[in-house]
Amino acid sequence: MREPTKYLLSEAQMPTVWNNLAVELDASPHLHPGTGQPVGEAELSGIFPREIVRQELSREVDIPIPEEVREIYTRWRPSPLVRAKGLERALQTPARIFFKYEGVSPSGSHKANTAVAQAYYNKQDGTRRLATETGAGQWGSSLAFASALFGLELKVFMVRASYGQKPYRRALMHTYGGVCVPSPSTETAAGRKILAQDPDCPGSLGIATSEALEVAMKEPGTRYAAGSVLNHVLLHQTIIGQEAILQLAMADVEADEVIGCVGGGSNFAGFAFPFLRQKLKRGGRGPRIVGVEPAACPSMTRGRLAYDFGDTTGLTPLVRMHTLGHAFIPPSLHAGGLRYHGVAPLISRALERGLVDAVAVPQIDCFEAGVMFARSEGIVPAPESTHAIAATVAEALRCREAGEARTIVFNLSGHGHFDMASYEKYLQGELEDATLDEKALAASLALVPQPHAPKVAVPA
Amino acid sequence: MREPTKYLLSEAQMPTVWNNLAVELDASPHLHPGTGQPVGEAELSGIFPREIVRQELSREVDIPIPEEVREIYTRWRPSPLVRAKGLERALQTPARIFFKYEGVSPSGSHKANTAVAQAYYNKQDGTRRLATETGAGQWGSSLAFASALFGLELKVFMVRASYGQKPYRRALMHTYGGVCVPSPSTETAAGRKILAQDPDCPGSLGIATSEALEVAMKEPGTRYAAGSVLNHVLLHQTIIGQEAILQLAMADVEADEVIGCVGGGSNFAGFAFPFLRQKLKRGGRGPRIVGVEPAACPSMTRGRLAYDFGDTTGLTPLVRMHTLGHAFIPPSLHAGGLRYHGVAPLISRALERGLVDAVAVPQIDCFEAGVMFARSEGIVPAPESTHAIAATVAEALRCREAGEARTIVFNLSGHGHFDMASYEKYLQGELEDATLDEKALAASLALVPQPHAPKVAVPA
Repeated sequence: MREPTKYLLSEAQMPTVWNNLAVELDASPHLHPGTGQPVGEAELSGIFPREIVRQELSREVDIPIPEEVREIYTRWRPSPLVRAKGLERALQTPARIFFKYEGVSPSGSHKANTAVAQAYYNKQDGTRRLATETGAGQWGSSLAFASALFGLELKVFMVRASYGQKPYRRALMHTYGGVCVPSPSTETAAGRKILAQDPDCPGSLGIATSEALEVAMKEPGTRYAAGSVLNHVLLHQTIIGQEAILQLAMADVEADEVIGCVGGGSNFAGFAFPFLRQKLKRGGRGPRIVGVEPAACPSMTRGRLAYDFGDTTGLTPLVRMHTLGHAFIPPSLHAGGLRYHGVAPLISRALERGLVDAVAVPQIDCFEAGVMFARSEGIVPAPESTHAIAATVAEALRCREAGEARTIVFNLSGHGHFDMASYEKYLQGELEDATLDEKALAASLALVPQPHAPKVAVPA
Repeated sequence: MREPTKYLLSEAQMPTVWNNLAVELDASPHLHPGTGQPVGEAELSGIFPREIVRQELSREVDIPIPEEVREIYTRWRPSPLVRAKGLERALQTPARIFFKYEGVSPSGSHKANTAVAQAYYNKQDGTRRLATETGAGQWGSSLAFASALFGLELKVFMVRASYGQKPYRRALMHTYGGVCVPSPSTETAAGRKILAQDPDCPGSLGIATSEALEVAMKEPGTRYAAGSVLNHVLLHQTIIGQEAILQLAMADVEADEVIGCVGGGSNFAGFAFPFLRQKLKRGGRGPRIVGVEPAACPSMTRGRLAYDFGDTTGLTPLVRMHTLGHAFIPPSLHAGGLRYHGVAPLISRALERGLVDAVAVPQIDCFEAGVMFARSEGIVPAPESTHAIAATVAEALRCREAGEARTIVFNLSGHGHFDMASYEKYLQGELEDATLDEKALAASLALVPQPHAPKVAVPA
């Protein structure tokens, strides 16, 4: 019999819990910027529904997935684990390459996993409207999809650089019934302040987060929904890695390398944390776990580990993370979902403890890998996901040199159907490689408090 | 236990043959326009590889799917059959609605099923390059995907109306490595002739077919690949309906209505013919089978059953079909894949014999149904597929009135990720309803030979 191409689980085999690694990783508390004290339920309940607040602060090992959420998940989950035979052939590598494919969700990426959970808990808690930020639009369109299912209104602040690059993403949100405006916008104090300083500001996830938070804090019936970074978001994504572990067992292989792209870090953590838990239980025996970030927005490899704000204007609690500084505005990468100044605190803890590795790759290399993947596997990957592919290709070529038959497993977090203008630009040779502005980075880092310093002033 | 959302088959359960209904339907032969005699292998072998010619003329009941094709199919097949619980709730209907989802293919539609088969047979037969036409681009991008896998070059003539509307589809073909030009083009005699008469001609599938055929006939190493209409194309799609029958059995239900959209007819036939075979075997007991076409391009409901050309300039054999006339240029529908002047001869035979029903629906109703589907099921359907949804919604609402719990099964032939500009136009209220030009239709029908007349002159 032929070896299967993909490994599918039945709906009955779909995991029933999310994995919370707060205890294993000894998660750092988020701090109130005024008092320097850990934030508790009271501070967070203004913007999040009760159950989300509980999950953000939870030390439970596993959290059950509600039946209503599970039922919606079954529209596309369990997602397939695919043997990338075409890519292996194209690379002539002895390595075995598998990818977990999250692009099968209705909105086209892993973001739907947490969008459905958050929309559900908000509906339960009486929320009328959600506000959020989005980069490339994968999060915004996923939350628009989930909001449509639960009858919630939605306002999305989309980073202006991506708003221009990805009109089809806007149209997708609109089709689902969501309202989408470019950020910085004139609708919030945060947006107006930034536009006054720089009318051509391309925006950033930090700025858009400030705008969404402001709306959620001011307007009654409106709450905020986060697409990455926070503990509860990473939590909801762990269904990915749990499924992948079951599927690798079906294929009767063990992963040697577990690879994911990192912006805020939710798809990476969702994919990698279940593997990490298993590895910790086995006393450190297990795969190398690698997060891949853009060379032009390198929070893990160039950032400082410190308490910093999650948004640009300082509306969030302080979170302990590798950060380029909350004032850092990344260049207009086509992987808009990775244009974030920091990384999830739980991933920062794992990095700090040497449990995961980080690498940074240039944008051009990522598109090259993306086109190779499209031509050998047929799937056009999201520009974000091409970062994981670029690292996979590099490892597979290393295996070819070394004659090693390692097993590489990466998370294909989403498809690139709404990013075709970026591919066209690349194919026409018109895509410039995004470069890191070292001067801006130094200036931004200077505004970051020293590591572990609990007290900082809210930026003026 | 909760009723499952989707019904999945294992790779081992994937059908091993394609169903050929040539005998059951008593297929009419294609005729040579000069001699009026049935065309044979000799005439077709100039433009198609041997095995495709054999399949086009075959009277075998089943044709085995080659192992190499099956292996590629398993990248996305068997495709899911999904219970549309969200749509049922939105419609408050007692009807049970299922859809077969072909949008899971790498290129996003059912077209990949025949693209892979045709690329395989061409590669086997020494073809270096393929030429084809495409409307909305679903066929062109599917063939680009398949050509990339088999290392074939590809030239695609894309109907100009769609070329402008769907830039992301062009970029997708380009990403797969295909070359795409708007049709009518200046690269062929057929294109130049039409542009001389009307420089603003929006093009049509018939014109683009003429251009692709001309290139295939003139240039060495180049063959033509058809995306619909012909027997072998419908044949390759029958894996859809075969899978759906197995999946309905898993769900323990029998279909009462089997619905698909119809342009050239390949997704409809691929979905419906296995049901039709079963129905014929049961002496006519079985589901009502309904093809849905655009009101502005109504070949089944307004066309004449006659021998006509498959392309505009008369390069194809004469095929017996319901036709609006080979000179008919449909209005610039957003469902570009349905802008064809005729319908597959095998479907015409089924219509003629009363084995299937045909309905025509206006474009605006289709987009309305498409948005309702997106908001209740999460999937944005291709504008072509919304025709099947509009008919499903109408039947489900009839069931609500009548209190009937019928089982409706439709084919969701593809997703609309590359058609978001059309959705945005609809949502902004800027989408005009495409209307049938009665005068142009009358003029075009006047050029169609009388029914069954075997001899016609090639148009000047």
